[in-house]
Amino acid sequence: MQLDTLFVTIVGSMAATLTTSSFVPQMVKAYRTKRMQDVSPYLMALFASGTTLWLAYGIFKSDWVIIIANALGTAFNLVLLYMKYAYKSSRLDEAR
Amino acid sequence: MQLDTLFVTIVGSMAATLTTSSFVPQMVKAYRTKRMQDVSPYLMALFASGTTLWLAYGIFKSDWVIIIANALGTAFNLVLLYMKYAYKSSRLDEAR
Repeated sequence: MQLDTLFVTIVGSMAATLTTSSFVPQMVKAYRTKRMQDVSPYLMALFASGTTLWLAYGIFKSDWVIIIANALGTAFNLVLLYMKYAYKSSRLDEAR
Repeated sequence: MQLDTLFVTIVGSMAATLTTSSFVPQMVKAYRTKRMQDVSPYLMALFASGTTLWLAYGIFKSDWVIIIANALGTAFNLVLLYMKYAYKSSRLDEAR
């Protein structure tokens, strides 16, 4: 692997790590506060649909960075979507 | 372009469209309700950092799908981060 190819691969891996891990603090915040009323369910639904297609794209291209990042991204967003509805039903009085 | 390459490109473009557009309903919801208390600022900060690196990755690879998707993704998340702080300061009584 050439040095410039290695550099580009490192930038891509860092990018994937940042975008995928960004959903972790949202899960932590939601778990702590048990509130997700201000979070749009379409954010998670569209994002999880998109990362599922990115996962297929990664499999076609045999690109492990894309496969791992998007498998995790899909899982995180499905968890958030579940939390959104779980916490909504336990706080009907505040539902918006 | 071969048929299977075209198919993979279409899957990638659909994936990029979905993950990038997922932040639009969040912006609409935040604008309407003027509330983003349940949204973690780290989600937008990490995501915008990640899409900035993805943008660099797209430029290195001369991949326009990656460039456009991540330029928009960065912009959307910076707007959301701005909204988070703009709405917080106007509702100090409810700040968490």
